[in-house]
This record gives sequence, structure tokens and C-alpha cells, in this order.
Amino acid sequence: MKPAGTLHLIPVGLGASVPALWLPQAAQELASRLTTYIAENAKTARAFLKLIGTVSPLQEITIHTLDNKVDAQRMRAWLKPLMEGGEIGLVSEAGCPAVADPGAKVVAVAHAMGIRVAPWVGPSSILLSLMASGLDGQRFAFHGYAPVDPAARAQQLKTWEIDSHKYEQTQILIETPYRNDAMFQALKQALKGSTRLCIARSLTTHDELIQTHSVADWKTQPAPDLAKKPTIFLFLAGR
Amino acid sequence: MKPAGTLHLIPVGLGASVPALWLPQAAQELASRLTTYIAENAKTARAFLKLIGTVSPLQEITIHTLDNKVDAQRMRAWLKPLMEGGEIGLVSEAGCPAVADPGAKVVAVAHAMGIRVAPWVGPSSILLSLMASGLDGQRFAFHGYAPVDPAARAQQLKTWEIDSHKYEQTQILIETPYRNDAMFQALKQALKGSTRLCIARSLTTHDELIQTHSVADWKTQPAPDLAKKPTIFLFLAGR
Repeated sequence: MKPAGTLHLIPVGLGASVPALWLPQAAQELASRLTTYIAENAKTARAFLKLIGTVSPLQEITIHTLDNKVDAQRMRAWLKPLMEGGEIGLVSEAGCPAVADPGAKVVAVAHAMGIRVAPWVGPSSILLSLMASGLDGQRFAFHGYAPVDPAARAQQLKTWEIDSHKYEQTQILIETPYRNDAMFQALKQALKGSTRLCIARSLTTHDELIQTHSVADWKTQPAPDLAKKPTIFLFLAGR
Repeated sequence: MKPAGTLHLIPVGLGASVPALWLPQAAQELASRLTTYIAENAKTARAFLKLIGTVSPLQEITIHTLDNKVDAQRMRAWLKPLMEGGEIGLVSEAGCPAVADPGAKVVAVAHAMGIRVAPWVGPSSILLSLMASGLDGQRFAFHGYAPVDPAARAQQLKTWEIDSHKYEQTQILIETPYRNDAMFQALKQALKGSTRLCIARSLTTHDELIQTHSVADWKTQPAPDLAKKPTIFLFLAGR
């Protein structure tokens, strides 16, 4: 028999802003009545639950912490109640769970157990920045982080630029916020002048900034203030 | 001086389901009060506006149709009112605008004119399927369509599988719905048994189906019913 329960993948906010801006009503209602969560960070999960409001008192909600010590056996124990019915929420530190975060492992275990997985709509800085970049979204790749070593980084950016040209593919990367300025400089130095570069900062918040220019034009512009602010970098080689 | 207007990127539904499931309240309110839209297809744009309800009567709302005859000059004319203030909405045929659709060109023109671009949260079958697949979301690539010719298709799928293994990258592709069954067969034949394959069908609707198995396991399972249903295919090579 098919398991009766559901693992709900619930997006959380990207920064300080009201849920009505980034979470559909039905997702908010569902999230507010679940009493068991799996979260990368219990503290941010509680802050999310406080923000959306919960039907049960917050202290009665179980939060399993998904750190890197958690193995598949533990995940199976967490998900076991779903074999009989019931519902559990999975949340990330920011944005959509199981995209560029360890939540994918929990989802994989759920699939192996035959449990239904329900993804909810919510904010993804990768997707929002791609939409807003004006770069060709017909093909794109998200690479996570570039190498930190300057020479290796320059080499990697050039390789991605060659692929971008070859496949008409938008390249998307992130950086640890305190290294954003260094990344911006590295992109300006490594890429061709005709490559279009989009900087998307602090999405969905009052501090949101999204600008796309050619690398040649960026060199004549004042650099945006990216210090310690979550930023996505996207580029597409000219043709 | 900086232009005062905003181009709003407004997601529409992926299939038959209520907006409370897939559109945040603030996005719905904003979309219901805009009086000018740019849309790939005026008919589906009107259906969306009818679904969410509009402040002005529907027949008073201007919809510019973005077909492939529209050049940059026409787009600039459409966006010109935003230089003085005002707001225009951009919608796609389904899901998030400017991702895998021609809307990106309008966004690019807006950036060139210095107009603010505001991306709103909404459903993306690419992102929802990636979340729900349980495949590693740390790195991923969306390729659009694979070649139609069987030999070229098999070769391309194998190449993407090699890249998937090399870069630990989830590969994401779509197919014209009437060719979904052929694509599913091609994936089972071309990929290794240890590669994990996710099929995500009819997302956000009552017909939603999301299953991930190894290719070896898919071969022993009944094939899901994908005929004429929007489906995303995702795979990650085993390591």
C-alpha cells in the first residue's frame, strides 16, 4: 500500500519582508498548522513560524535539526510517521528547501520510502534573479560558488563564459556575502566587455537592487554596494 | 534622472488551480490593479486577469502581444511610459515570465532604458520540480529541449549524464507534451541504471505526480501517464 503522509517543502523568506509578498496564502495556512518540521537551523525555523503564526503554541512544535551529522537512518526515523499518514514540513535557512541546501537528502529518502513530496511556491533568489536579469532564460546553469583562489577563480569564470557563448547559457553563481566585492571585481576582470552581467542584491526586501549591464559598461559605473548583502551574479556571453 | 516607473514580472499559473495556491497575496493585488500588460498570448493573459479579478473592467486593460515579430524598437515604445512613472506587468504563457520564454527580451530593453524591474514570486515548474526531485540542488542546469532525432537525442542525453557525473550537476529538461512518452523511453534507454531520474508532471494541479527512482528501478515500474501533460525530466548521475 502507498504511504498516506506527505512531506511538504515550504519556502521561507529571503530577508526582512512580510510573507504576503513572497508566500501564497494556502502555503502560509498549511505551514501554520503543521506540528512537525525538519529544518537546517531550528532558530531560523522558529523565527519563520513566529512570522507566519502557528495554530499550535510554538513550544509544542517539533523541529528536527538537519545538520551534517544526520544520516539516512535518522531521516528515515523522522519520516516514518508519514508511512501511516500525517504531514511534516521541510524548511531551509532561506528561500526554497532542497535547492542548493542539504534538504535534498531528506527528499531523496522520502522518495525511497514512497512518501508523497509536495513542493510549495515561494521565493528563490536564483529564479527571481534569472527572471529579472533580462538574460536569456532558455538555458541556464547554477554553479554555486566559484573557487576562492584568484587564479583558479579567473580561470573558472572564463570557462563558464566560453560555455555561455557555446550553449547560449546564462551562468548563475553565488558568493559568501563578505566576498561579494571581490567577486564583482573578479567578474569585471575575467569576462569580456561584451558579456552582460547582472547583479541581483537583497531580493524581495526594501534593499533590492537588480542591474544588468555589459561588463564594459559596468567598468564605467560606480560599483553597487554589495558588502555583506546576499547577492546573485548572472552573466551571458555576447554573440 | 532615474526613470520612475516599474516593469513588474508577474507569474501566472501552471495549470488549473486556484491562485491562493501559487501566487502571494501582494502579487495578486498588484496584478489586479495594473492596467497595462505585455503578454506572449493576449488570450491566456485575459484568462489570468479574469481568474485573479481586476480593479478596472477587463476590456479597459491594454495588452501588448509579444510575438516574435516584435522588435526592440516596439518594446521601447511600450516601455516609454515607464520613463515618466507608471507600471506595466509582464506575463508569460505559464509560470514565471522571462524564464525559458521571450519575455527576457523585454526585460533586457527595460534594463537598457534604466527602468526598474520587479520580479514577483510565483510558480516555476523548473524550480518546483528541482525542489521535489530530491536530486542534489547544489548545482543544476536547465537545457530546454533535447534534440528530436533519436540518435542525436541519445547522444545528447549521454553527454549530459557525463557532465552530471563530472560536476555533480542535476540536468533538467522539458519536452513537447505529445512527445513525453518517447522522451521517457529515450531516458531509460540512454542513461545508466545508477542514474536517478525524476518525473514531475502537472505541477500545482490535482494531477501532480512527482517520482524519483534509479533508471534501473524505472525499468521495472509501470510507466507514468505523461500523455499531453506538462512534464519536467530531471536526472543526476550516480557517484
